[in-house]
Amino acid sequence: MTPFAPHVYADRRRRAAAQAAAAGLDGVVVTPGPDLTYFLGYPASTAGERFTLLYVPAAPTGAEPDGVAQALAVVPRLEEHDLRQGAVGPVETLAWTDGEDEHAAAARLLHPGGRYAISDSAWALHVLGLQRTLPGTVWTPFTRALPLLRAVKSPEEVARLAAAGAGADAAFAEIVRRPFAGRRERDIATDLDALLREHGHEQVDFTLVCAGSNGADPHHEADDTVIREGDMVVLDFGGLADGYGSDTTRTVHVGEPTAVEREAHDVVRAAQRAGVEAVRPGATCQDVDRAARRVIEDAGYGEHFIHRTGHGIGLTTHEPPYMVEGETTPIAAGMCFSVEPGVYLPDRFGVRVEDIVVAFDEAEPEGARRLNVSPRELQIVG
Amino acid sequence: MTPFAPHVYADRRRRAAAQAAAAGLDGVVVTPGPDLTYFLGYPASTAGERFTLLYVPAAPTGAEPDGVAQALAVVPRLEEHDLRQGAVGPVETLAWTDGEDEHAAAARLLHPGGRYAISDSAWALHVLGLQRTLPGTVWTPFTRALPLLRAVKSPEEVARLAAAGAGADAAFAEIVRRPFAGRRERDIATDLDALLREHGHEQVDFTLVCAGSNGADPHHEADDTVIREGDMVVLDFGGLADGYGSDTTRTVHVGEPTAVEREAHDVVRAAQRAGVEAVRPGATCQDVDRAARRVIEDAGYGEHFIHRTGHGIGLTTHEPPYMVEGETTPIAAGMCFSVEPGVYLPDRFGVRVEDIVVAFDEAEPEGARRLNVSPRELQIVG
Repeated sequence: MTPFAPHVYADRRRRAAAQAAAAGLDGVVVTPGPDLTYFLGYPASTAGERFTLLYVPAAPTGAEPDGVAQALAVVPRLEEHDLRQGAVGPVETLAWTDGEDEHAAAARLLHPGGRYAISDSAWALHVLGLQRTLPGTVWTPFTRALPLLRAVKSPEEVARLAAAGAGADAAFAEIVRRPFAGRRERDIATDLDALLREHGHEQVDFTLVCAGSNGADPHHEADDTVIREGDMVVLDFGGLADGYGSDTTRTVHVGEPTAVEREAHDVVRAAQRAGVEAVRPGATCQDVDRAARRVIEDAGYGEHFIHRTGHGIGLTTHEPPYMVEGETTPIAAGMCFSVEPGVYLPDRFGVRVEDIVVAFDEAEPEGARRLNVSPRELQIVG
Repeated sequence: MTPFAPHVYADRRRRAAAQAAAAGLDGVVVTPGPDLTYFLGYPASTAGERFTLLYVPAAPTGAEPDGVAQALAVVPRLEEHDLRQGAVGPVETLAWTDGEDEHAAAARLLHPGGRYAISDSAWALHVLGLQRTLPGTVWTPFTRALPLLRAVKSPEEVARLAAAGAGADAAFAEIVRRPFAGRRERDIATDLDALLREHGHEQVDFTLVCAGSNGADPHHEADDTVIREGDMVVLDFGGLADGYGSDTTRTVHVGEPTAVEREAHDVVRAAQRAGVEAVRPGATCQDVDRAARRVIEDAGYGEHFIHRTGHGIGLTTHEPPYMVEGETTPIAAGMCFSVEPGVYLPDRFGVRVEDIVVAFDEAEPEGARRLNVSPRELQIVG
C-alpha cells in the first residue's frame, strides 16, 4: 500500500484524541491490524503474537499531548526496529523484553480507573491482561466508542476505494465475456482472482461463485459444481487494491432466463436502487436496510432476504457501519458501504446485486454516489 | 488438513470439560481460529467477522452434559450450514440473525456471575460484549486457564509435527545445494517457500533469510540484499503441513568462515544442545531458557542473546508454552516446542540454531526428542 503523507496519520490521531475526549474517554489503545495501519501506516501483516499497542491519549481539539502529533507505542524489543521502519513518521517507543509482563509494560501509559477504547480485534489475552493489571479500568470497543472515526473516509480514502471499485468492475467486464457453461465454479473463481490482481488488487479476499441452487446459500464457496446452461450464477468478489477494499456482486445467467428468474432479479435490482436512494440527509443506517427490504417484502420475497443490506468498507472489506435493523447511527458524509440486498430461493437459485457507495461527497452532496458502475441489468453469459 | 476421527474431537472436549471443572470454571468459550479447529475440526480460515462460538461446559470426568460429547455452537444463521458441513461430527447450533444482539444470543448458554475461559484470540469486541451482557462474569484467557490442554500433544499430533519437521528438513537439504553468492535474500526465500510446499506444506508462514549484518536482527525479513562470499546467513522457515507446524533455523556460511564466526556458531550450537538436554523430569519451561542462556553467557555473548529460547508449536507455528524466564510451568510429556538460542552481533552477523522437540514421548521418555534432524554443523554453501 502506498503510504499517505505523514500529516495524514497525525491528523487521524488528532481526530481520535478529540473524539475520545468528547466521548469522556482517557485514551485509545490501538493494536496490530487495520487500526494500526490507519493511525501509523504500519502494515497489518507485520504484527506478531507479541503484544504491541499504539496509545492515543484523549485531548480536546488544539491540545497536543505526547502520542498525538508524535506517535507513542509499546512494542516488543525484537520488533522495535521494524515498527520504527514500517511506521510513517517518527514513533516514540517503550520496548519490553521477552520474559517481562507485557501488560505491566503497557500499563506505564495508562492508569487504574481510566476509561479507554481498544481495537475491536485486540486479543482477549491482552484485554483481560490489561483489565487484570489495571483494576477499575472501563473498556469499550473502538468502533462503539468512536463510531465515526474510521467509518468516515477522507477524500483520499474515497479515491482509493473508487480505484479498487473500478478494478473490480474491470474484472467483471472481462469475466462475462468468458465461457461459463461446462466449467466449474472453481474455475470462474480462479479467473476472477487473477483478473482482480491484474486490475490493481494486491490481495483477494473472496471470489464467491454460486451456480443454480448453490446461489440459495449467500455464503456458498466456489467448488467443483459444473455450471450448466440455464443456471443463475451469483458472483461476489473483492479484495484490497493499494490498501483499500473492493466488494461487488452481480448475478448473471447462462443463456436465457425464465420469467421467474427475471422477476426475482428485477426485484433485487429495484431493492438495491431503493437502498442507494435511501441515503438522504437525516437517514440512518437502518433506513437503508428498511428501504431495500421493503421492496423485496412488497414483491412477496421478504422471507427469502436473510441477511443485512450492507457493511462498511475501507482498510478491510467488511467493517462498521452495518446497514441493518437496529443500527440507528445517522449516515455521515464520507461513509462508504455496500448496498447488497438479495433473494435466496432454497433448492432453486439466488440473486444478489451489490455496489459500494459513498455518502454525501462533493459529486452527490445529498445522496449516495456508487463506486461501482458495472451494468446492473441481468447479464447473459455463454 | 486431513481431519482426525470424530472421537478425537469429542475426547478433546472431554479433556477441556474436565480441566475446566478442576480449575473451578463453569465452561470454555471457543472462538474461530486454531481453538475451533482443535475442538471441532473446523478450518480456521472459514471464520468471518460475525460472532461464532463453541461452548464446552465444565464437567468432571465421566459426566457428559450437552456440549461435550456432542458439540454445541452459537453461530450466525448465514454460517450455520457451513459450520455443520465443516465440523467433524454433529454440532448442535443456536443460530442468530443479522440485527439481533449476538452477545445476548451467546448469553443463552452462559450465566451472570459465571467463571469462563475464552480463546486467547477472541476479539475485544466480543469479550467486552459478553462482559456487558453478563454482569459479574469472570473471564480468563484459555491458555492461562487450561495451560496443558493444547500444549500437550497426542501421539497423532506429534506424528503430524514430525512429518512437518521432516518436510522442513528436506527443504533445508535442497536449499544448501543451491548457489547463495550473488543472489538476493528474497530469491532464497522464494526457493524456500517453494521447497516447503513441495515437501508437504499447504501454508508457509515465514522464510527469513538474513545475510551478513542483517543477521543481527532476529526478525529481519528477506529483502533485496545481495548475498556475498564471506556472509553468514540465518535461514528460519516454517509453515503448516497437514494442519501442523514446522519451524526450523540453520545458519550457513558462504565460503570459509572466520575463526570468530565459527566460534559464535559453536557457542550457539552448544547452547541449543544444552537447552534440549535441560528437558528432564521435573524441569520447567524456564529451565530450558536458563540452560541455553548460561552457555551463551559463559562464552561472553550473554548481552547478544536478546530473545526467549523457544515457543510451543502445534496448529499454529507460535503458541504457548514459552521457554522464557518466569515461565514456571513444568514440562509435561507431549509438549512440543522450539529450542532456538541465538547470538546477534550488531553490524556484523547473527547465528541461530533451532529444532522442534517433543518432551518425554515413548522414544525418549526421560528427555526431549528432536523432530528436526538437519545437520547442526555450520554448513558451507556456495
